This record gives sequence, C-alpha cells and structure tokens, in this order.
Amino acid sequence: MGELKRFGVSLPAELLEEFDQLIYEKNYSNRSEAIRDLIRCELVEEDWQVGNEECAGIVSLVYDHHSGDLLDRLTDIQHDFTDEIICNTHIHLDHHNCLEVIVLQGRANRLKKIADRLTSARGVKHGNLSLSTTGRGLK
Amino acid sequence: MGELKRFGVSLPAELLEEFDQLIYEKNYSNRSEAIRDLIRCELVEEDWQVGNEECAGIVSLVYDHHSGDLLDRLTDIQHDFTDEIICNTHIHLDHHNCLEVIVLQGRANRLKKIADRLTSARGVKHGNLSLSTTGRGLK
Amino acid sequence: MGELKRFGVSLPAELLEEFDQLIYEKNYSNRSEAIRDLIRCELVEEDWQVGNEECAGIVSLVYDHHSGDLLDRLTDIQHDFTDEIICNTHIHLDHHNCLEVIVLQGRANRLKKIADRLTSARGVKHGNLSLSTTGRGLK
Amino acid sequence: MGELKRFGVSLPAELLEEFDQLIYEKNYSNRSEAIRDLIRCELVEEDWQVGNEECAGIVSLVYDHHSGDLLDRLTDIQHDFTDEIICNTHIHLDHHNCLEVIVLQGRANRLKKIADRLTSARGVKHGNLSLSTTGRGLK
Repeated sequence: MGELKRFGVSLPAELLEEFDQLIYEKNYSNRSEAIRDLIRCELVEEDWQVGNEECAGIVSLVYDHHSGDLLDRLTDIQHDFTDEIICNTHIHLDHHNCLEVIVLQGRANRLKKIADRLTSARGVKHGNLSLSTTGRGLK
Repeated sequence: MGELKRFGVSLPAELLEEFDQLIYEKNYSNRSEAIRDLIRCELVEEDWQVGNEECAGIVSLVYDHHSGDLLDRLTDIQHDFTDEIICNTHIHLDHHNCLEVIVLQGRANRLKKIADRLTSARGVKHGNLSLSTTGRGLK
Repeated sequence: MGELKRFGVSLPAELLEEFDQLIYEKNYSNRSEAIRDLIRCELVEEDWQVGNEECAGIVSLVYDHHSGDLLDRLTDIQHDFTDEIICNTHIHLDHHNCLEVIVLQGRANRLKKIADRLTSARGVKHGNLSLSTTGRGLK
Repeated sequence: MGELKRFGVSLPAELLEEFDQLIYEKNYSNRSEAIRDLIRCELVEEDWQVGNEECAGIVSLVYDHHSGDLLDRLTDIQHDFTDEIICNTHIHLDHHNCLEVIVLQGRANRLKKIADRLTSARGVKHGNLSLSTTGRGLK
C-alpha cells in the first residue's frame, strides 16, 4: 500500500462499540481496514458523479438466449465499444436464461451510455451497471 | 457526545490526501467528524435493512392539489397511522404543485408500508422515502 | 392531469401477473397509475443526474441539540442559502435528539452543495438528501 | 417471451412526451420494452429486499495483487462458498491493479454475506455487490 500515515480518530464510546460490532459482522480484520473501505467507497462514488473520470464498471444482463436475434444484437453493440469493453463472461443460468457480465473501463459518462445501450436492447430482462474503479490513485 | 474514545487509523499517504480533499469539499471540520459520519451512515442503513429496528423516515410527496379528492385521501391515509406519523409540512411550490413532507417514526418495515400507501395514492406525481434515524444509540 | 393519451402495452402473461401482485401490495389503484409512477421516478432521477435542472429536495438532519453551538451554526448556514431554502421543520425526537427537515428548491448541483454543508456540520449525527421534484413539467 | 397480454395505459400528454424523449435517449425500441424494463427492475429489487428469494449477484473486487497473500485468501474464501459461486473473471487493469468479477447464485441474504466476506478482505480496495436475477419467473 506504499507509505502509511497514521492519525488519531475520536469516537464516542457507544458509537465505537456499534462500529466494532459491524466490523465483526462484516469480517473486517481491524478498524483501519473498515475505515479505509468506507473512504474508498466515497471516493469512487464521487468519481462516478463527476462523470469524466476514468472508471471501471460491470454491466450485468439477464436474457433468454432464444429471444430472436438478441445474441447477435448484443454482440453488435459491444463491437461498437471495443475501446471500453474489456471482456465478457457468459453464464448459462438454466435452459432459457443467460447472465452476461461485461467489464468496462473508460470515462464514467461514456460507460453509463454503453450500459444504457445494452440494458435497453429488446429481450434483455434485467440490466444493471455496477460502479467500480480502475484502482489507480486509490491506495 | 459523552465519553470519547481515541484510536489510531493507518491510511496509505495518497488515500489520506484524497480523503482530505473530499473533507475539504464537503466542509467537514476535521477527519474524525468525517469518519464518524461515514460510520453512522453505515449503521443507519443496517438498521433499515434489518427491518424491525426503530427508525425515523421522511416521506416526500409532490402532487397537484386540484387533483380530485387527493388532499382528503392523503389525510385519511395519514389518520390510519397516527402512531407513526409525527408531523407534516406542506409547501405550495406553485399554483398547481404541492410538496408535502411527512415525518415518521417507527419500525423500518412499517414505515416502508406507510410510504407505499402514500406514494401510490392516485394523483401523487412523485413520492420518496428518505431513511433517517431516531438518533438513539447513535452517538 | 390535462389531456390524457392512451396507448397499448404488451407484457408477457407471467410478468403481468407479478406486476399485478406488486400493484396490489403497494396499493396502486390501477396499472396506469403504477406505470406513471415508475416513469416519473425515472424522469426525476434523470433531472438530478443532469445537475442544472430545477429540483426540490429534502435534507434531514439528526443531532443532539445540546451539542455546543450547533443550533446556531445550522441556522447560520441556512441563512447563507435563503434563495434555496423554503422552510424547515423541527421535531424533538427525545430529550437529546432532534430531527430537522429542511425543504429546498433550486438547481440540483446547488442543492447537493447545501446538503453537504449541513450534513457535514460538526455534531450532526446523520444527514440525508432526498431527491424530489418541483412537479413542473411532470404531469 | 411466451404468451403476450396487451392492455391500455393512460398517460398525460406531456408525461408521455418526456417518456418518449427518455426512451429515445436510452435507445429503447418501443414503449412496451421500456415499461417492461421498469417493471422487471422493481420486481428484482423486491426479491432482494425479501431476502430468501433465489437471486443472482455479481461481486466486483479491485485490489493490488502484490498485496501480501490476498490472492490466496480470496481464493480460500471463495472455496467456502462453492455452492453459490458460479464463476470468476480476472482482469489485469494495470501492473498493480486487478479487477475480479465473481458471479453468484443463491438466496439474497446468503449472497450479501458472501459479498461482505470478500469485500472486507484486507487489501481489497473496492468491493461492490450488484443485484441481478436468475431470470426465472421474470418473463
């Protein structure tokens, strides 16, 4: 993690007790680790809000692969965005349902647009964009 | 805030720098204050997820008061939940639009139900439930 | 609601069944009402994302009013934003805890800034910004 | 999509206009498709709230693979949940940063627990659980 800086935090005793309980439930190894996670989550959200920051994102799509030419159309859309789409995992949930997980990297606003294009494709039952990060500058 | 406990937190230097930037943008007076807020937000979200914890919530409704007997119906619904509804503020946004802000206290699951009843009333254009807390046990 | 337009929607039979179940649970009077609500929620979210649209918002703050000069500071901050702050309701949750509900109207990005200022004030235990709408243009 | 049912929806003319604009921006092929998506999103959220419904989810983790024995620990955790973890994609974002995308299927509450275990592992910079669906019963 590079150079570590240490500083003191003051918490009311009862708040600390509740926080320790949460840390335990969520399996954090210590308070610093849990606090680092809270901070990083805030920073990643901020990056996505700003819009032109470089981010990573994951689009999930659930669809019935028997649904017309959907597979072809989804592939076509993805080929329009080869600069941003890194890779793609396909899961056969059952005889009908597929879950496709597409990993993207690029400017936040652009990734949102791509997610809209994929999610709105006719035949896609459910689509979601999960906000992640390139990890760069996020120690 | 009652008795304060102090403990050390280790952060990578670069993460701390970004956090300090965020603290500055959000106007926090110091790191402890910002960290306390992150922790409390987590705890309040947890309470709402569990469902049977005592919470506070705010329902906002936007509607056109000319819309049939909507005012009467909203009042009727609220009278069904006098145990949970604390108070109610009404704002005349313009000639047509009203914003009604209803403050609730009670078990999370119950508050969600009440919010559903109000939000779904015919003529309500937009409804939202904002998750808050009684502050008890949240130092 | 002004002039109504009617159009047909096709849904798979099973999806319609599940939707009707949800409508029943959420107390909607009919399908059109439920669909109107889904659409309006999308539009309001979009307005908040764009950032410079005129919106309404509700800030909730929970704090211990014994906490130093917090009441004064919160009042001071609010006086810096009289153009946007419409009104303010104060609830005495218990001997210590107050819930303050502040109604705002203005450009989305500006309202976010004001919410940050209030939420980050030292002594505020929990703050939340609930996204609402002026209702204008939202039939 | 199996048997289709058709029904009429009434919308105020101006709301319909704004909806058509949104449909255009999000690339939906027609109104029915957009409305189906709104409905399905609601139903999937409901399933996740209930907690014991069978769902699919995607955990994303960003970490520096040089970070001690993190790779081993993440693999160990995943082997504790082979019933729920379907597969796993690893992306080398840069020399340091990895993005790991883990696809899960199982009861919502259980998937949340697994996501907590992975996200809280020491060295993970950012973790997120994206809520998806098995698509079953979601036509």
